[in-house]
Amino acid sequence: MSANGENLEERFSALEKRLRALEDRADLTELIARYGPIVDSGEGQLLEQLWSPNGVYEIGEEFRVSGEQIRTITEFAQHQTYLSSGCAHLLTSPSINIDGDVAHAVNHSFVVVRAGKEWIVDRASANEWHCERTERGWRVAVRRNMLLDGDAAARALLTHPRML
Amino acid sequence: MSANGENLEERFSALEKRLRALEDRADLTELIARYGPIVDSGEGQLLEQLWSPNGVYEIGEEFRVSGEQIRTITEFAQHQTYLSSGCAHLLTSPSINIDGDVAHAVNHSFVVVRAGKEWIVDRASANEWHCERTERGWRVAVRRNMLLDGDAAARALLTHPRML
Amino acid sequence: MSANGENLEERFSALEKRLRALEDRADLTELIARYGPIVDSGEGQLLEQLWSPNGVYEIGEEFRVSGEQIRTITEFAQHQTYLSSGCAHLLTSPSINIDGDVAHAVNHSFVVVRAGKEWIVDRASANEWHCERTERGWRVAVRRNMLLDGDAAARALLTHPRML
Repeated sequence: MSANGENLEERFSALEKRLRALEDRADLTELIARYGPIVDSGEGQLLEQLWSPNGVYEIGEEFRVSGEQIRTITEFAQHQTYLSSGCAHLLTSPSINIDGDVAHAVNHSFVVVRAGKEWIVDRASANEWHCERTERGWRVAVRRNMLLDGDAAARALLTHPRML
Repeated sequence: MSANGENLEERFSALEKRLRALEDRADLTELIARYGPIVDSGEGQLLEQLWSPNGVYEIGEEFRVSGEQIRTITEFAQHQTYLSSGCAHLLTSPSINIDGDVAHAVNHSFVVVRAGKEWIVDRASANEWHCERTERGWRVAVRRNMLLDGDAAARALLTHPRML
Repeated sequence: MSANGENLEERFSALEKRLRALEDRADLTELIARYGPIVDSGEGQLLEQLWSPNGVYEIGEEFRVSGEQIRTITEFAQHQTYLSSGCAHLLTSPSINIDGDVAHAVNHSFVVVRAGKEWIVDRASANEWHCERTERGWRVAVRRNMLLDGDAAARALLTHPRML
């Protein structure tokens, strides 16, 4: 290799680009891995670190909360019942697709709730995540969650993400 | 550090080797993370992107499908019943061992199916994955899946992978 | 870019630091991903590769085993019953925080056990992991596991890790 400056800059740039791609993937994996522990701790205000303020969380057709209000989801009656019963939000490791400053991911999530001596699966869902790079790192722009109850639209979420 | 060409090449090569190892791990994690969402979407033809054409998927002793036929698994009567009932293939984050152009991974998988108001665990399995680097990226050469029903052979899969 | 040695050293050092951070994260993910497959294989001696000899595994308030004795947990009557019934220790992908030579992670774990024609969730737990960099790589210094049965202390584990 010649040690002239131009060649070196190309070599460094190529490495930095590959590093950035890996860092993005690690950051997005971590972002999604934080949701379950936070929501099961009951500390809804920590969810604000995950969403963009103008982001949104949609559950099925009937429920929609903004990033600014995301903290309120742990205050819902349903969630309080989950917490007092004993509850685990189980999310699988996402499949991630990164395109510059936006990313798309899909995974499964489950709400596992204590019922007597065992825990039952109260919800099993398909999820799509649209994420965006912000000044404060990767954040959730849109999370859509649909019950896997035989509905074709929920299944389609896993491979045909709707546009933002 | 002296800026002579030979030293520089060693430095770059060392970094590139470490980068490649991380990229391989990320690619293999992504490869396995795609299985669940694809199979639950019902779009079996997308599974062809995961397997080598001459690869194989073995379930227990009785079932064996080639990479070329992998698309057919979503057409099976059992799978169609899963899809219409509401179904989630839950795979855990794999433990991965990479050796050059081949890799081995183990993880758990679960088939979670709706039954009335809740979902039940219809299958809980041990999996071993033999993967290979191809011109089109990492692909599954062999996936073996065995039910964790007390069978010692299924347990052994988790730490003593059989040779290809 | 000038090709003088000092600048180059800074460039290489910056890349190496970022690489190391990613390698640490990959190693910690792998460390935790190994627990489930090993414990379900029944080969407790392999758990010694995960813990520091002076590390500890605490389950609730009543159970505590050292890294040196970690192999014994697969010999417990409860665990032997799990293995003969058919059992899967399902761990979620951890949220990881690295600080030099120590790291903290949280995740969920589930013990899924066969009961007739299906598998039931016998335990659903919150976990915190304190890990340390050793001469033999990252190892578990402390793992704490608490049942998510409505207990506030278990919930707190997910966001307020106790000090070592």
